[in-house]
Amino acid sequence: MTSPMSPEPTPPHVVVVPDSFKGSLTAADVAEALRSGVLAAAPHARVTCLAMADGGEGTLDALLTAWRTPVHHVETVDAVGRPTTARYAVSPDGRTGVVELAEASGLPAVSDAPLQPLHAGTHGTGAVAAAVLDAGVEEVLVCLGGSASTDGGAGVLTGLGARLLDAEGRPVPDGGEGLAQVASLDLSELHPRARSVRWRLAVDVTNPLVGELGAAAVFGPQKGAGPGEVAFLDEALTRWADLLERETGVRTHDLPGAGAAGGVPSALVALLGAEPEPGATLVAESVGLPAALEDATLVLTGEGSFDSQSVRGKVADGVARVAAASPARPPVVVVAGQVLLPAEQARAAGIAAAFSIAPGPIGLDDLMSRTAVRLADVAASVTSLVLAGR
Amino acid sequence: MTSPMSPEPTPPHVVVVPDSFKGSLTAADVAEALRSGVLAAAPHARVTCLAMADGGEGTLDALLTAWRTPVHHVETVDAVGRPTTARYAVSPDGRTGVVELAEASGLPAVSDAPLQPLHAGTHGTGAVAAAVLDAGVEEVLVCLGGSASTDGGAGVLTGLGARLLDAEGRPVPDGGEGLAQVASLDLSELHPRARSVRWRLAVDVTNPLVGELGAAAVFGPQKGAGPGEVAFLDEALTRWADLLERETGVRTHDLPGAGAAGGVPSALVALLGAEPEPGATLVAESVGLPAALEDATLVLTGEGSFDSQSVRGKVADGVARVAAASPARPPVVVVAGQVLLPAEQARAAGIAAAFSIAPGPIGLDDLMSRTAVRLADVAASVTSLVLAGR
Repeated sequence: MTSPMSPEPTPPHVVVVPDSFKGSLTAADVAEALRSGVLAAAPHARVTCLAMADGGEGTLDALLTAWRTPVHHVETVDAVGRPTTARYAVSPDGRTGVVELAEASGLPAVSDAPLQPLHAGTHGTGAVAAAVLDAGVEEVLVCLGGSASTDGGAGVLTGLGARLLDAEGRPVPDGGEGLAQVASLDLSELHPRARSVRWRLAVDVTNPLVGELGAAAVFGPQKGAGPGEVAFLDEALTRWADLLERETGVRTHDLPGAGAAGGVPSALVALLGAEPEPGATLVAESVGLPAALEDATLVLTGEGSFDSQSVRGKVADGVARVAAASPARPPVVVVAGQVLLPAEQARAAGIAAAFSIAPGPIGLDDLMSRTAVRLADVAASVTSLVLAGR
Repeated sequence: MTSPMSPEPTPPHVVVVPDSFKGSLTAADVAEALRSGVLAAAPHARVTCLAMADGGEGTLDALLTAWRTPVHHVETVDAVGRPTTARYAVSPDGRTGVVELAEASGLPAVSDAPLQPLHAGTHGTGAVAAAVLDAGVEEVLVCLGGSASTDGGAGVLTGLGARLLDAEGRPVPDGGEGLAQVASLDLSELHPRARSVRWRLAVDVTNPLVGELGAAAVFGPQKGAGPGEVAFLDEALTRWADLLERETGVRTHDLPGAGAAGGVPSALVALLGAEPEPGATLVAESVGLPAALEDATLVLTGEGSFDSQSVRGKVADGVARVAAASPARPPVVVVAGQVLLPAEQARAAGIAAAFSIAPGPIGLDDLMSRTAVRLADVAASVTSLVLAGR
């Protein structure tokens, strides 16, 4: 309501920042559908669409879209040492480089052959990181997730120039197998800028490095490790963390998130001072979400399924955290293919409301064929309601 | 947002005023589910639940619930002249009596035998109306809808004491058949109070009395009239309206709504000055909705299916009209089993938003088994969203 003394009311500002609807629409398509619904209900509204991701696969693409910067390519190796090309991004101001681990060291790229749970490594990602450092950035954002290996980040170190030596001073092999043999670290040829930049690790799990909830026990099997190999890898990671602790004084065995991507954070935290952060929040910052929300009236996000995972580090969670920290405190509304999380739990996670696009009893195929239309319609309803209460 | 000069903010006031979910929950059950959801999201909110109906069947029950007045019974006759008992209501202040046509003259009560499209009539309802006049009311609310007959309201008149005579001065038979023979009206024994009270007719259709969209053509078939009988009844209604016009100067042939309940409005409008009104709006007034909405923050209504019919005289439409006329202009939100009306059309009808209770792809039986839980959840989301924008 406008008092006689108020200046001309500013038009409402709606920020649209969804994830993709897997199997149905890309995040950009979802954003466009939501945007059209907002404008149908409020033609005078200002709508900002932002690409968003949760720090896992797809994050590099989301940042390239948000930044409109050219993609860079590096010749490197995949998780089993075969030549491959990986991409990275640099922010418009040249300060931040983005490395997505799955680009060089991802599981899908090596799924054409029997998995090698003891031998797969992350050396290729280290080589990409070295290229990013060569580009002169001041901070490196490493998006973890989708890895094929359980090597405690040893490969990233070797890719950056470090040498891992056994008791006889010989380089150990790649992968978890090498961890079991490493006796000392030679950092004399580590990339000269590796210790002068800020390393930020986007993680989407809170698992510790070792133990029952560790990298080997929880994620080893999906990388091909049988029970014996899981036990071997867990022991190798423990030895590796022991060594890192002796060298640096930093203990990473139980660090939340250290179990991401086969334990990559342990090496980077101990040796390079890296900071593991919830991926969605980190990406939200990188795409400029905090600035966009400063005067937002409403924030619309969405994903195919809104469930208990959604409020644990996924896009909706990252958006809600940024909104809660914003001075405008705009309400965050999730529009989803299905809403499985009770409203009370959504509110507890900072999400004002979650609505399904289902118009009533309907089958999955029928609903998927109408996703865009229904997204627009629900976005229109939400917009209309929020503006009515304004 | 509260400025330093503002008084203590008043708690939000949510008005819950749904229709029933046919085959699933009564209106009272729907209201209770919505109420629990509102309070889950806003424990400090004030919630007012009102019984509501659209002026058709169920209206008498809604008013009895709203008024908490005792039900009255009258011995009368059904649409084919068999003894039956009908109910009526009187408002707490004794000013308004409510007659539901379907009580005495409804179609379901005579569906146990072959339908009599030419002979069924509304005499029984006239007798109920006479009892209501005896009770001393100042206005009579007649809820039309669900009738078994097409008699142009002739039966209501005879129930009130009028006599319809043929060319030889003999009383004509009941029903549409009698209309074809009536030559004159004898009002000498009409109930003495019939012309001194205000008659308000709750109609839920806009059909004229006669013609292609008239009472006989559109509603005759569902009362058992074949094509020949429809033509006969349309002609009889025309003759009847001609006679009424000659007697009173009031022309009802094309009056919108005169085609309701087999043409009952034509007689009551012409002879008693009755006013046809949209049923839902009339009921909304009678249950006190305008007063309840005076300081409302949000209005929640709902029905099983929210479709194009909903915004044409049904409960949601009546609620929206009252809200639009309210100084607080509270947003009206529909929560429905299925939402078939596009958001744009809902907004055009004064409904800010409509949400389905479907949580995603789901079958009808599954959804119906979870109606109450889902109603509460969606109500919580809507409440949370409206209060966030406050």
